[in-house]
Amino acid sequence: MGVPRDDAALGADVLVLADLRGVDSHGVSNMLRSYVNGYTSGQINPNPQMTIVRETPATASIDSDRGLGIITTPKAMDIAIEKAAAVGIGMVTLGNARHLGMASYHAMLALEHDMIGVCMTSCPPSVVPTFGAEPRLGTNPIAIAVPSRHEAPFVFDAATSTVAGNKVGIARRLGVKLEPGWLADSEGTPIMEETDAPDNYTLLTLGSTRELGSHKGYGLSCMVDILAGVLTGFGYGAVPGRPNFGHYVAAYNVAGFDDPEHFKDTMDEWLRMMKSTRPAPGEERVMVAGQPEAEMEIIRRAEGIPLHQEVVDWFHDTCGELGIDCPF
Amino acid sequence: MGVPRDDAALGADVLVLADLRGVDSHGVSNMLRSYVNGYTSGQINPNPQMTIVRETPATASIDSDRGLGIITTPKAMDIAIEKAAAVGIGMVTLGNARHLGMASYHAMLALEHDMIGVCMTSCPPSVVPTFGAEPRLGTNPIAIAVPSRHEAPFVFDAATSTVAGNKVGIARRLGVKLEPGWLADSEGTPIMEETDAPDNYTLLTLGSTRELGSHKGYGLSCMVDILAGVLTGFGYGAVPGRPNFGHYVAAYNVAGFDDPEHFKDTMDEWLRMMKSTRPAPGEERVMVAGQPEAEMEIIRRAEGIPLHQEVVDWFHDTCGELGIDCPF
Repeated sequence: MGVPRDDAALGADVLVLADLRGVDSHGVSNMLRSYVNGYTSGQINPNPQMTIVRETPATASIDSDRGLGIITTPKAMDIAIEKAAAVGIGMVTLGNARHLGMASYHAMLALEHDMIGVCMTSCPPSVVPTFGAEPRLGTNPIAIAVPSRHEAPFVFDAATSTVAGNKVGIARRLGVKLEPGWLADSEGTPIMEETDAPDNYTLLTLGSTRELGSHKGYGLSCMVDILAGVLTGFGYGAVPGRPNFGHYVAAYNVAGFDDPEHFKDTMDEWLRMMKSTRPAPGEERVMVAGQPEAEMEIIRRAEGIPLHQEVVDWFHDTCGELGIDCPF
Repeated sequence: MGVPRDDAALGADVLVLADLRGVDSHGVSNMLRSYVNGYTSGQINPNPQMTIVRETPATASIDSDRGLGIITTPKAMDIAIEKAAAVGIGMVTLGNARHLGMASYHAMLALEHDMIGVCMTSCPPSVVPTFGAEPRLGTNPIAIAVPSRHEAPFVFDAATSTVAGNKVGIARRLGVKLEPGWLADSEGTPIMEETDAPDNYTLLTLGSTRELGSHKGYGLSCMVDILAGVLTGFGYGAVPGRPNFGHYVAAYNVAGFDDPEHFKDTMDEWLRMMKSTRPAPGEERVMVAGQPEAEMEIIRRAEGIPLHQEVVDWFHDTCGELGIDCPF
């Protein structure tokens, strides 16, 4: 697609790590064809010139020149990590950006530096504010990764909507019912009974209804839209005609607060404490964020990543069209 | 209570601003008597020596010497603001701390400096993790305040539990039913029908059940416990016997990312965009975080703060016991 070799390798690493961790929604089968389409249509710039627009010792804002987020964001995170090594914190925004990929990939880059990593992205609107009939917010995920010693690190990565948008498409394809509280109807009213995937719907913020706390999910989604959208200087999710995304990464140097060795021991203690919580009746175990993904990564590194035949066919077809050798 | 005059004035400002903004749960009627009890029992140190344990240009961690959070946290936020003015970001943790008060008070201190303010606090356990039967997390609120020009600033301040703990007590006193999804029973099973306030219960994280996304509220609550607990170096919410709290404040200098004048204009545009969302059927209007509180503040600054007679009596009694003139 005209992407420089090193950049292509970096992007592949982001996609494959998503697949290894079981985050199939952000792996090759779900994202790669939209990236190929974006490069083909010219929406995504294969060879962006990233420019630092503003900078202080702890901050930078970057014009990412329509570069794909899975490639530009790790580079922004490297800048954040450098700044955090120098002054304790690094925080970088990316405007004029394209799809982020798995947010936790970027956050996790901080781990080997004994830093806490954070990543958010402001997406195009698909989610209604509490009491609203029109989508004004994206699924706007928040990711945070925290280093530990022997335990798998704490890695949280979740949309601030009740569910990710592609779960609705999957349910429609499989013909299964959707849970109460996942969607609003076309007028913004939360659907609070089991339902077939409707033709017209919007997503709800975490909490689903005002009574259950949707105003909290709404507020958190706004926070993401502000930090990863407004703060970039390049607009926010609902700016009319804005076809892009905004990203936000941060690195907090643990050594700026506590002895990193003491911190990692305490995180191990904290993770074990949480995982040893007695389960509620009928539940098997209590997990912590990042644990299911770490367990899946062990399995898939041993057994490989399962791909649907349709995806394999797409690979063969696309490689054929582009004149690339397909390695499988 | 032995609190120096300036500190007492600062603490009073935090309590009264909570009352003015309609956050009665954190104002004089609900918090002051527990603070008086804490000073009387020696749990809270009236004259703490705050010590910076670690420091970098962008970070500091503070031993707050059992000082009350409503007094120590604004001072920590002043340090964060100074650091953000110098290097772009300031982030400060407070360990060995006592109750925070209204989290958004501290976040809002950043506003007049054209900075974004953040505040979190790690509280003693009252909330079950998803699938858990035992409380392991506090109500662990997140607050963020963002400057604007003419519109009331975006001020988000919410517990990561479905509801604040004291709503259950209020419902019991008033004899009203609680909403589905607010509580778990004594074994950790979410109560998903309307219920009287049970004798034994725990709180659920935002999302209420796994299907509705409680693992997201759980993850966000963990994030708070890590940043405002583990990162302080003084333990976390569920450390056995830890009778205290941990706090976290941060200031992000807007000028480190964008022209602050452009940012504030964009925030006004963003706030108006969100508030002008067409409402869903049966709903009056879409609001943004901080708007109801700003509207209440206008009313209460004009009309005063309503206090229950029982609270007024407590003031009279307590002032009498302590030999203080009661001003009303």
